Amino acid sequence: MKIVRTISGLKKEIRAAQSAGKSIGFVPTMGFLHEGHLTLARQARSQNDVVVMSIFVNPLQFGPNEDFERYPRDEERDTRLAGEVGVDLLFLPSVEEMYPEEPAVTLTVHKRTNALCGLSREGHFDGVATVVMKLFHLTEADRAYFGKKDAQQLAVIHGLVDALNVPIEIIGVDTVREPDGLAKSSRNVYLLPEEREKAPAIYKALGLIKQSVEAGETDVASLKQKARYVLEEEAGAVIDYLEILSYPALEPIEKVNETIIAAAAVQYKQARLIDNVILPVKGSAPCTAQ
Amino acid sequence: MKIVRTISGLKKEIRAAQSAGKSIGFVPTMGFLHEGHLTLARQARSQNDVVVMSIFVNPLQFGPNEDFERYPRDEERDTRLAGEVGVDLLFLPSVEEMYPEEPAVTLTVHKRTNALCGLSREGHFDGVATVVMKLFHLTEADRAYFGKKDAQQLAVIHGLVDALNVPIEIIGVDTVREPDGLAKSSRNVYLLPEEREKAPAIYKALGLIKQSVEAGETDVASLKQKARYVLEEEAGAVIDYLEILSYPALEPIEKVNETIIAAAAVQYKQARLIDNVILPVKGSAPCTAQ
Repeated sequence: MKIVRTISGLKKEIRAAQSAGKSIGFVPTMGFLHEGHLTLARQARSQNDVVVMSIFVNPLQFGPNEDFERYPRDEERDTRLAGEVGVDLLFLPSVEEMYPEEPAVTLTVHKRTNALCGLSREGHFDGVATVVMKLFHLTEADRAYFGKKDAQQLAVIHGLVDALNVPIEIIGVDTVREPDGLAKSSRNVYLLPEEREKAPAIYKALGLIKQSVEAGETDVASLKQKARYVLEEEAGAVIDYLEILSYPALEPIEKVNETIIAAAAVQYKQARLIDNVILPVKGSAPCTAQ
Repeated sequence: MKIVRTISGLKKEIRAAQSAGKSIGFVPTMGFLHEGHLTLARQARSQNDVVVMSIFVNPLQFGPNEDFERYPRDEERDTRLAGEVGVDLLFLPSVEEMYPEEPAVTLTVHKRTNALCGLSREGHFDGVATVVMKLFHLTEADRAYFGKKDAQQLAVIHGLVDALNVPIEIIGVDTVREPDGLAKSSRNVYLLPEEREKAPAIYKALGLIKQSVEAGETDVASLKQKARYVLEEEAGAVIDYLEILSYPALEPIEKVNETIIAAAAVQYKQARLIDNVILPVKGSAPCTAQ
């Protein structure tokens, strides 16, 4: 595995791959790799000649009161894991390399942001879209891999690719979970032991919505009430949101009669965790963001 | 010359060119072609295997009180001229093809807009950057050609390519002029005969700045005063602006000691015309936007 830290170094490798007619799969990450990231890389490995992974904690997508400075980093471990899972090219740029100055042009996301994490993280998805656009251009990838755990991010990326005609295929990959159901996340390391014990209640609450919908329940208010009860009783965290929305449009609904997302965000002492389930409804669009 | 009106049709042609290992040169236009556009196309022809020209009057870059509806159009003549000058692929999309819905993501330009046309055309360069980004993605061009007449646009495009790491080379092409010095523009057709007679005064005023700078004059206020006098006395139009700024940063300056742009915009009855000269100063950066 080659490690490059500069844009010029990356472009040299990309040009070599292109000259050799190789397809490029790209896995953007913020590092502190876990099984979720590795699953993205494995899928990229299986579908492309060259797998590029980036590790870059993007300051543009953190708000002033968010955890940019203390976002967990472990370059040595990340490098080992990326190598083990078959990444060919690991791009590890500094902030100065990616943003030598205040960017003259950024992306602004107008849709799919007025819900879920978009409500409390102002400008977050503009920052995500901008860095993703930069990375797509730098890697010139044929395919890019994103986890469905960040379902709103995935919906925004699909919106970006459609709106700006980006010549890339976006592949959404299923959420990887701990045996007890907790979604893998770099932020899980912040959980206190007693919080970690209770955190699987997030997925339990979402699973209750899934089961109820599969059993024919369609009333959104009632579905949310049941799940909220589980969260309040068992998660031991402050609920930021528990929502059921259309997917990928992320519009409010009263009845379940199209593909939906049930999503939750909860705040523990040192970690804000999110999770979701996407439920295709019979006769509606399939369970992927379009 | 092939004419395509759909994105899918364009992408098919682009893929074929790429598979054959051909380089792609791209000339974005809003049509009503004149010698300036044809010069861009000829330069693209000389440097690339395949020349793609787009003709698209982009509603996103027109303000509510601007001339989107009555912007001149002549598809039949444009098609003939593009063919004559060696364009291989002419992309003529409808507004619905480019914007099937309100775009979910757009570009926002933060630098080089707070001057010249950016002051009176709010959001104009955001619209330009967004459509240019779409067209770069659609054509996957190696090189794109822009006229230096729209010097602020060229500076913004360079800023866009740098900020978002777009894998394309931007080539600025010298302004083409009528024998009497008037810069070629699609909007010249709106001039009344007596306005057309006086309009060369715009370039005369800018030329006076050029001569004075070349003769060693460095005081910006004095340079502007002289040129303004010529414009006021001879152009027969309302002066929108007459400015001398650093280039490509477009910052105000008091003394000429780096590459500068002298630029003017004037309003005739039915046409707003712009023109500029870019002057490299000994020992400063060369006369191209970086």
